[in-house]
Order: sequence, then C-alpha cells, then structure tokens
Amino acid sequence: MYGYTPSKDEYLKRLRRIEGQVRGLQKMVEDDKYCIDILTQVSAATRALQSVALGLLEDHLGHCVAHAAAEGGEVADAKIREAADAIARLVKS
Amino acid sequence: MYGYTPSKDEYLKRLRRIEGQVRGLQKMVEDDKYCIDILTQVSAATRALQSVALGLLEDHLGHCVAHAAAEGGEVADAKIREAADAIARLVKS
Amino acid sequence: MYGYTPSKDEYLKRLRRIEGQVRGLQKMVEDDKYCIDILTQVSAATRALQSVALGLLEDHLGHCVAHAAAEGGEVADAKIREAADAIARLVKS
Amino acid sequence: MYGYTPSKDEYLKRLRRIEGQVRGLQKMVEDDKYCIDILTQVSAATRALQSVALGLLEDHLGHCVAHAAAEGGEVADAKIREAADAIARLVKS
Repeated sequence: MYGYTPSKDEYLKRLRRIEGQVRGLQKMVEDDKYCIDILTQVSAATRALQSVALGLLEDHLGHCVAHAAAEGGEVADAKIREAADAIARLVKS
Repeated sequence: MYGYTPSKDEYLKRLRRIEGQVRGLQKMVEDDKYCIDILTQVSAATRALQSVALGLLEDHLGHCVAHAAAEGGEVADAKIREAADAIARLVKS
Repeated sequence: MYGYTPSKDEYLKRLRRIEGQVRGLQKMVEDDKYCIDILTQVSAATRALQSVALGLLEDHLGHCVAHAAAEGGEVADAKIREAADAIARLVKS
Repeated sequence: MYGYTPSKDEYLKRLRRIEGQVRGLQKMVEDDKYCIDILTQVSAATRALQSVALGLLEDHLGHCVAHAAAEGGEVADAKIREAADAIARLVKS
C-alpha cells in the first residue's frame, strides 16, 4: 500500500497513453515526418512523463514521507533524504 | 529526406527501447512497486526521450537548417526561428 | 525559524557567488565574448541556482513539512500540496 | 561582432535585472522569509537566465552558425556540433 495505490488505474491509463505517444513517434520516424514535428511530439511525451512523476511524488510525500515524519527519528530523516534525492533526479532529467 | 534519415533505424531502436521502459513502468505500478523506484525509472525514460530529441535536433541543424542557411534570405530566417522555438520547447519540457 | 535557518550563512555565500557569476556574464557581454562561452557560463549559473533550490527544498521537507506531517490533518495536507507545487515549478523551470 | 552584438544593451539590461533578483534572494534569506516564497523567486531567476540563454542561442544560430553553414565543409560541421553541445548543456541544466 503506497501513496499512489488509490490512483493506480489513473496512473496506468496515463502510462498507456504515453506508450501510445512513443509508438506514435516510431510511426512518425518510419513515415519520414518533418523533424520539427517529431520534436514537438517528443516534448509532449516528455512533459506527460514529468507530470506522472510529479503526481507520484506528491502521493509519496503525502503518504510514505508523511507517515515517516509522524514517527520521527532516523526513519523520517532517511525518507526525507530519499525523497530529496528523487526530486533532484527529476529536476536534472 | 531529412537530417535523421540516415540514422532512422537507430532512432527506431531507441524509441522501441523507450516504449519498453514505459511498459515496464506500467508493470511496476501494477505490481505495487515502491514509489521511489518507479520515479527512478520515470527519470530514466525522460532522459532517454530527451537524448532522442537532442539527436534529432543536431541532425536537423546539420541538414535542414544548414541547407536553408546556405540559401540565405527569408527561408533561412524562418528555419532558424523554427529551430529556436523547438529548442525553447525542449528546454522548458 | 525555518529549515534553512541553521545553514543561512552557507546559502548567503552560495547566492553571493551566483551574483558574482551573473556580474561575470555582464562583463562577458560587454567585452564581446564568444556566444558559446557565454552560454556555458549561463548554464553554470542556472545549475548553481537549481542546486540552491534543491537544498532549500530538502531543508523545507525535513523541517516545515515534517512538523506539519507529524501534526497531521488539514495542516499537513496543505503543506504537502504547497511543497508539491514548488517542486512542480522547479521541475518546469 | 557576434549574433548578440546588436542586442547587447538589451542583454545587459536583462542580466542586471537577474543580478537584482539574486540580490533579492540574499535579502530574503537574511530576513528569514518563508522557504516556499524563496523557492518561487529562485524559479523566477532560473527562468530568466534560461530565457537569456535561449535568446543568445537563437542569435548564435542566426549569425555564427548560419555563416558557417553558408561556407559549408568542416567549419560548418564544427559550428553545428558546438551549437548542439551547448543546447544539450542547456537542456540538462
């Protein structure tokens, strides 16, 4: 049971849509579409992935991190450090 | 015939791998994997997409933009503006 | 008293260094330095700012958000939503 | 004489404004402002720097890269590779 569990179906739907976007990108390359039009769709897929990441992160903060923070101590510190590292990876990707 | 045409197969291979990463993300959500582990994989897929975009962009600059620049005039200006807009979308996504 | 309070001096030092980087950029423009060299320094200043942001965010999660989470209820929800919004702004900037 | 030369004054004005934003950030830290408010201003300064970078890049493509592309040969290839590297640094920062 994680923060994203109640919204599992919604995340799966979004990820299936992103899978469709990536397949659409393959079709564009196969059909020799114009580079700039492909780039526009790559940006759209990237933004969709980032939006999934931001959703998962908010669910994680509101659930796992919040529970750990309520307990306090080393467990809380470790969870917060772990979340901060994930945020850094997200910002840099 | 575009800048990416000679590397079409390589782009298709990379996009198929990204499609696999996105399907892997769905499996992680279905199997109730830990949020942070999912986030790490989302960051990896995002970086892979960005890397495809940077490749397409370099091919585009070296081919379509370079040709237009060699012609000069309004065609060149329009191509450069179009490329700059695509770069801005990429930086902001 | 906030999460960043114990590291105030360190943040001020880093921000003063970034101010110096931005003044250095002005000097490069005034001295007609090569565009790509200016761009390299803009990227360095941007990364330094993002690194300050990631530090402030981790301090915020470990202090303000952790305290609110320990209290629970609506206060916790509001703090987590606020932090998630700040993370989204950071990822998109 | 570079692509940004005709807009030098405008770039200097924007960079001075960003310097002011970074000094404003120092004042916020000194005055113990709320972390989230500081983060909002860091995001604003980061976006302003990125916008300067995108401007410089477009000027560079329209001037130095276009000239090199018109000449063609190895000089053109080297300029395009250099620009692509700068774009990659920008996207990753």
